[in-house]
Amino acid sequence: MIAILITIMVLELRQPTGSSWADLGHVIPRVLIYLLSFAFLGIYWNNHHHMLALTDRINGKVLWANLHLLFWLSLVPFLTLWVSEGGEGGSLPIHHEHFAEVPMAVYGIVLLAAAIAYFILKTAIVNEMGSESEIAQALGDDFKGKISPMLYAAGIILAFINRWVSLGLYVSVALIWVVPDQRLESRIASRTESS
Amino acid sequence: MIAILITIMVLELRQPTGSSWADLGHVIPRVLIYLLSFAFLGIYWNNHHHMLALTDRINGKVLWANLHLLFWLSLVPFLTLWVSEGGEGGSLPIHHEHFAEVPMAVYGIVLLAAAIAYFILKTAIVNEMGSESEIAQALGDDFKGKISPMLYAAGIILAFINRWVSLGLYVSVALIWVVPDQRLESRIASRTESS
Amino acid sequence: MIAILITIMVLELRQPTGSSWADLGHVIPRVLIYLLSFAFLGIYWNNHHHMLALTDRINGKVLWANLHLLFWLSLVPFLTLWVSEGGEGGSLPIHHEHFAEVPMAVYGIVLLAAAIAYFILKTAIVNEMGSESEIAQALGDDFKGKISPMLYAAGIILAFINRWVSLGLYVSVALIWVVPDQRLESRIASRTESS
Amino acid sequence: MIAILITIMVLELRQPTGSSWADLGHVIPRVLIYLLSFAFLGIYWNNHHHMLALTDRINGKVLWANLHLLFWLSLVPFLTLWVSEGGEGGSLPIHHEHFAEVPMAVYGIVLLAAAIAYFILKTAIVNEMGSESEIAQALGDDFKGKISPMLYAAGIILAFINRWVSLGLYVSVALIWVVPDQRLESRIASRTESS
Repeated sequence: MIAILITIMVLELRQPTGSSWADLGHVIPRVLIYLLSFAFLGIYWNNHHHMLALTDRINGKVLWANLHLLFWLSLVPFLTLWVSEGGEGGSLPIHHEHFAEVPMAVYGIVLLAAAIAYFILKTAIVNEMGSESEIAQALGDDFKGKISPMLYAAGIILAFINRWVSLGLYVSVALIWVVPDQRLESRIASRTESS
Repeated sequence: MIAILITIMVLELRQPTGSSWADLGHVIPRVLIYLLSFAFLGIYWNNHHHMLALTDRINGKVLWANLHLLFWLSLVPFLTLWVSEGGEGGSLPIHHEHFAEVPMAVYGIVLLAAAIAYFILKTAIVNEMGSESEIAQALGDDFKGKISPMLYAAGIILAFINRWVSLGLYVSVALIWVVPDQRLESRIASRTESS
Repeated sequence: MIAILITIMVLELRQPTGSSWADLGHVIPRVLIYLLSFAFLGIYWNNHHHMLALTDRINGKVLWANLHLLFWLSLVPFLTLWVSEGGEGGSLPIHHEHFAEVPMAVYGIVLLAAAIAYFILKTAIVNEMGSESEIAQALGDDFKGKISPMLYAAGIILAFINRWVSLGLYVSVALIWVVPDQRLESRIASRTESS
Repeated sequence: MIAILITIMVLELRQPTGSSWADLGHVIPRVLIYLLSFAFLGIYWNNHHHMLALTDRINGKVLWANLHLLFWLSLVPFLTLWVSEGGEGGSLPIHHEHFAEVPMAVYGIVLLAAAIAYFILKTAIVNEMGSESEIAQALGDDFKGKISPMLYAAGIILAFINRWVSLGLYVSVALIWVVPDQRLESRIASRTESS
């Protein structure tokens, strides 16, 4: 389902208003924020995929924790458009402010909520699988999972002071995560070999 | 396919008209009804998934009963927009009435039709699998499946008297179902253990 | 992929222009043609699913025959909107002619092309699997597959004389197919039992 | 996910402005570029599917190389619309220039980037699987993979001289690839037989 979200996000990408290089230039901020959202959803897709690959049993709590995460992620395409356009201003081609303060802050709030939802999902899985399970040990020390919410929180506040710093913080979270979760990956590799 | 429906529904979520907190405030009713529809489709996704996990054989009747259910569910994103916007009023930003009477009633009618379609699907599966089958016993006493249509019916009628009561009834159905079907879940768990 | 097509088709369904019963009445033709297209795609989904369930090997020809079928089916949502709206007339709410002649004829042409593409796919699969294979025998006498193109062809021509007769012919093809392919189904059932 | 991209691309296909044959004629360039993009995504879908069928292990690099490819492919529906419409000109029905120079060049750039991303993905898979692996040998001599980027590059430059030549080059790349990768296919066939 995260794959579908990533895919439909392109439908929110508005066309240039003409067919010159200048028209293309005007959509570059949109393409950049699209790229950032693409990276965030891609990170969740990869890590989510890795985590579920180590999860043999699911219960009702895990299902709902999963749906809760998907709810926040499903708002990302919507916010991506808002950040890039600054609002829907009627029928004429619009050149609203890109990366406006409030959309930037709300973008961070939704990313923060998704990070918390991911933490809840992880906890629900570990509870179901037991603290002695492979996945509990694999997820043991979660540095990235602890630093990310702090960076999001800083990004939300700084959106009202300097939104470029805010944008930089969101980009840096994405960069931290681009390397998928080595812990999980090595576990899956070793499990595959031993089986 | 229900996962796809949940995902594309976000495409129906309209942008705020500007980039202030006030503009965001105007879209809150839209986000709330989106959340409600997200919950309904999520409930069907989970229970449908559980039910099919216990279904080893399918026949033509089951396939069509399934497609019939999906037809009604596929109207949910469409109605979600109608409930939240009250109609498409041309090209200018519109502030139609949220949660208008007729859309609220039609929303309930489609939810009721989906509930009936789910009942038909369940019956078709039990007929195929036999009344002695695990799934027939697991689904034996379906309290939630009996109370929900009554609440929908009440919601449809009350939409014309007080639509907030109607909304409250729909929300309460969602809350009843948020806990996935324990009966099915425990069967799947025990089956997994015994295998 | 047919499942995705069925699902996204709802995105083409336009909102009513207001929130009264009369506004809802105006969208009824749209919902009916949506239902017809939903039925056609659902029929292809079911039969396609049954056919591929009996196909153990695929080669390049089968892959491309499959993609060729999907191309024609992918035009169905686009045509459904055109049939129901009669064209995109600018930004104001439009009440174009529903079920206009040319859209009705083109709708039939695309359905005919999809039927031919399905025949090509079937032939490619039978060639790959061999004429002695289970699937070749299961598909042996294809009455529905022979009568449908004739009904489509009649519907295309009659669109210019009486489009309601044309619509009636398309609906009758859908009705013929709503019962999924018994031949394939009984084979799958017997195979499952013997395995 | 490529399947989803192919499917949602039809949502970008704009309706004719009326219901006559002439109105249909105006959308023919759109349908042709849609068909070309459909063919490109279909080619990637088939070859990608074949390649992953021979890939037993994936690591983080492969996952990100895959996501990188999907990023470029996800821009195809967006560019298809731009090429066919020449830009979004407000709310009135528009008859912008089809196949304008800059969109044609950017279309080629994205196809080139996707081809490079596919090469990176292939390299990452071969590195993971080892140069002695079946897939490395199957992919050994990649004539099509070498000629395609050159044709794209020529198409990008020629877009500014004669865009029809440019279009012809893109179409010829698609034609070269329509036959799926025989090397991979024969390997999969032989593997299936030996297993």
